Amino acid sequence: MSARYEALLSRLHTLSDMQKSVAVLYWDRETFMPVHGNTGRTQQITTLNQLAHEMATSTQMADLLAAAEQEQSSAAYDSDVACLLRHVRRQFDEDRLFSTDFVRRRSEVTGAAGAAWAEARERNDFAAFRLHLESAVEIAQESAEILGYADEKYDALLNQYERGMKTAAVRDIFATVKRETVPLIQAIGERLDAIDDRVLYQPFAIDAQRTFCRQAAASIGYDFTRGHLAEVQHPFSTSFGRDDVRITTRYQPDFATSAIFATLHESGHALYEQGIADALSRTPLAQGTSSGIHESQSRLFENQVGRSLGYWQNHFTSLQAHFPAQLGNVSVTQFHRAINKVQPSLIRVEADELTYNMHIILRFELEQALVNGDLQVADLPGAWRDGMQALLGITPPDDTQGVLQDVHWSQAAFGYFPTYTLGNLYAAMFMAAAKEQDTHIAADLERGDVVRLLAWLRTHIHQHGSKFDAPELCRRATGQELTAVPFLRYAREKFGRLYGLSN
Amino acid sequence: MSARYEALLSRLHTLSDMQKSVAVLYWDRETFMPVHGNTGRTQQITTLNQLAHEMATSTQMADLLAAAEQEQSSAAYDSDVACLLRHVRRQFDEDRLFSTDFVRRRSEVTGAAGAAWAEARERNDFAAFRLHLESAVEIAQESAEILGYADEKYDALLNQYERGMKTAAVRDIFATVKRETVPLIQAIGERLDAIDDRVLYQPFAIDAQRTFCRQAAASIGYDFTRGHLAEVQHPFSTSFGRDDVRITTRYQPDFATSAIFATLHESGHALYEQGIADALSRTPLAQGTSSGIHESQSRLFENQVGRSLGYWQNHFTSLQAHFPAQLGNVSVTQFHRAINKVQPSLIRVEADELTYNMHIILRFELEQALVNGDLQVADLPGAWRDGMQALLGITPPDDTQGVLQDVHWSQAAFGYFPTYTLGNLYAAMFMAAAKEQDTHIAADLERGDVVRLLAWLRTHIHQHGSKFDAPELCRRATGQELTAVPFLRYAREKFGRLYGLSN
Repeated sequence: MSARYEALLSRLHTLSDMQKSVAVLYWDRETFMPVHGNTGRTQQITTLNQLAHEMATSTQMADLLAAAEQEQSSAAYDSDVACLLRHVRRQFDEDRLFSTDFVRRRSEVTGAAGAAWAEARERNDFAAFRLHLESAVEIAQESAEILGYADEKYDALLNQYERGMKTAAVRDIFATVKRETVPLIQAIGERLDAIDDRVLYQPFAIDAQRTFCRQAAASIGYDFTRGHLAEVQHPFSTSFGRDDVRITTRYQPDFATSAIFATLHESGHALYEQGIADALSRTPLAQGTSSGIHESQSRLFENQVGRSLGYWQNHFTSLQAHFPAQLGNVSVTQFHRAINKVQPSLIRVEADELTYNMHIILRFELEQALVNGDLQVADLPGAWRDGMQALLGITPPDDTQGVLQDVHWSQAAFGYFPTYTLGNLYAAMFMAAAKEQDTHIAADLERGDVVRLLAWLRTHIHQHGSKFDAPELCRRATGQELTAVPFLRYAREKFGRLYGLSN
Repeated sequence: MSARYEALLSRLHTLSDMQKSVAVLYWDRETFMPVHGNTGRTQQITTLNQLAHEMATSTQMADLLAAAEQEQSSAAYDSDVACLLRHVRRQFDEDRLFSTDFVRRRSEVTGAAGAAWAEARERNDFAAFRLHLESAVEIAQESAEILGYADEKYDALLNQYERGMKTAAVRDIFATVKRETVPLIQAIGERLDAIDDRVLYQPFAIDAQRTFCRQAAASIGYDFTRGHLAEVQHPFSTSFGRDDVRITTRYQPDFATSAIFATLHESGHALYEQGIADALSRTPLAQGTSSGIHESQSRLFENQVGRSLGYWQNHFTSLQAHFPAQLGNVSVTQFHRAINKVQPSLIRVEADELTYNMHIILRFELEQALVNGDLQVADLPGAWRDGMQALLGITPPDDTQGVLQDVHWSQAAFGYFPTYTLGNLYAAMFMAAAKEQDTHIAADLERGDVVRLLAWLRTHIHQHGSKFDAPELCRRATGQELTAVPFLRYAREKFGRLYGLSN
């Protein structure tokens, strides 16, 4: 007997279709929409979000859910049915807190702010973005109050992206990362010349970059018959279901590795979505379970795989064939060293593995201050410059290379940034666990062969979708709670070797 | 006092947003969706269509409409308000005839048939498409029964695309077109060698084609800040609102004019949508009024403008600059003659202005037979071959170049094809009226300047959107009922001159 569960499922399918439609509207907005299309697009997204919200929080939904819960009360804890009902219940109770009016307003605010941000970034004009950003901060603050919190307002926001994580815990673990990383960056700073990466900065024909990037995505298992690679200002990936997972990248004419690593990064996200069990399709479980776990997959393929010597042992000859004039005389070890140069820089998405986390820690601190009202939006550019100076010893010459570089705040996505560094930590944990549980993986990766690694990830991470929250998934996969130890060990070993540092 | 009208308007905005979202889903499907994405996409489109249908036919909608009609009963006949209410009433009464179940079924059938058609066409495998096409025919027959008809079943279908038009009237006017055109094609057939178009069939670099096509679209007024040009198998245009109207084309490496005229054609459609009055935005009036009128705009720019000597007097130098090796030694008159060569051929979208209508007349006859049950789908490929032989004296060597060439039937869009030829007739009527009403236009067009022509179209056609049905719009713009006279006069004069025929 599962008639009630089936009735709920049918409603969830409808909701999933609406949400995936919204995802297509966003994708098109970022990829192909003309400049004047945004007003209409914001209306379309706002309308669909509102209808979905009404449906998701309706009395009918409450009844369907309660009936299904009663009918399926004996389902095994980790069955699809029980996991789905837990997830839907939690989401329903949370969605019910938001009025339709609020949802519509949030969509309108972020729609307008997104367009204003893109223009402001283009023209290096923070002032033109200020009012929009203030509205976005207010919407986030209002969200936090609606969601409620026990300790800190920021908890409520963080929880939207990383359920079960506390701001205080993130502060602690980030303090450890900072404490261990800053001296490492400084030690490397004294040996900056040990790595020469000028070979990466040459003219690289965009067409050849395009061909190689497609190949790079396929090399780690991205399935082009269930995806598409497009070009955007700010790379992202998105899923319309496991059989249609899109990725994007950005080509720079004088710096090919930018596009290559962006592609590997987004392909890592996409592998997660392409690997979710088909049985979860058209349900809320058919998506990555948290932003941090999602980021662990992108970071794992961008860095742990993509910046390893083993990967390039396998693929460098092909890269050379695409760019014989630029790389024909470069050795694979030279190239591997170049793509791992550590040096404080301005743009997060171009940062190396070590300084990257400092970019995140800065944003994490600024976000808390904004959300708590300790920092005004008008003072944000100054606070950004001060923070960059304090953490990395450099100051952006303009806001486009500073506070305006990222889209996230225009989307009121406060609480999202810290999950990038959580992703780095999870990635190192998963890589260590995979190598331990399948002892062939380490040797395979030395040859740039990711098949067994991907199989491990499919089994332990991907297939589960959102069945388990991040902490539980992490325990199930690695037997451990979140810890910075594997990441810091990886970083010390890798960069110690590259820069000839003694421990 | 307009509170009730505003309430209706707000509901219409929501519906418009949903319909435009569906248009984005279709656009993405045709342009960028990976092969395995179609199952999910069909589900998304089906769900949104169903929700929109439920909303459009709800009791609440009935009440909103009745209240607004009462409140606005004294609105002037041709005011936006009165036109909108008439349109919504008619659409509402019609939509109410269709059950939600039928709408969902139709969406599922056409979603699956669309994918099957694309595969069958690729593999020249009509048998693999047959069952899908049978379902599409049945859905169309069912539609006709639901809609009802006084004289012929086909009337109900034709009316979906060309409201107020009777099958018998189309038969009459097509008979005239056929009677006058067939001897003309035969006379030209005796002088086939009078025009040599081999210069069009050479290797043309796709990148240069892309650049020129963008320029061609802009040359007739297509606004790229409110649009985007993409590449597809089967070119089309679509609107997500007047500020985001997309066009597509298809590049052939050995035949550049194919892409150029497809671009001009789709740009003509897009000019109509980009030119609709902003006051009509997010209402059902914000779209072209009928398929025939829509086609008149594309045909006008593709043929009456795009295949004229005047247009190329202005633009041929630029085309030569894109393809110096291929066209450097060709004169503009030579080129103009080449692009107007009349010769029976297999593919509708590549056909010349005269034989094109014969392709339509064949489809019109086959559609009526299918809908009336006088022809079985299994016998369609044979009937197609016989018809091509009878009308144009040629037989397709395979179904890909025959019955499988067009997408329309997979979408159950029976009744649509005849509107292409109606478009040709309207285009000639509008061009004649424009030249008569603004006596500068003819001289401007001799120099390839379309500014005044576009202004006339904006005023008399575009801005009105769907305020007036095709017959009324035609009367208002030209003072006449639909007639083939201007088209046949244009054809006799143009091709008589090109082929040196005496009248």
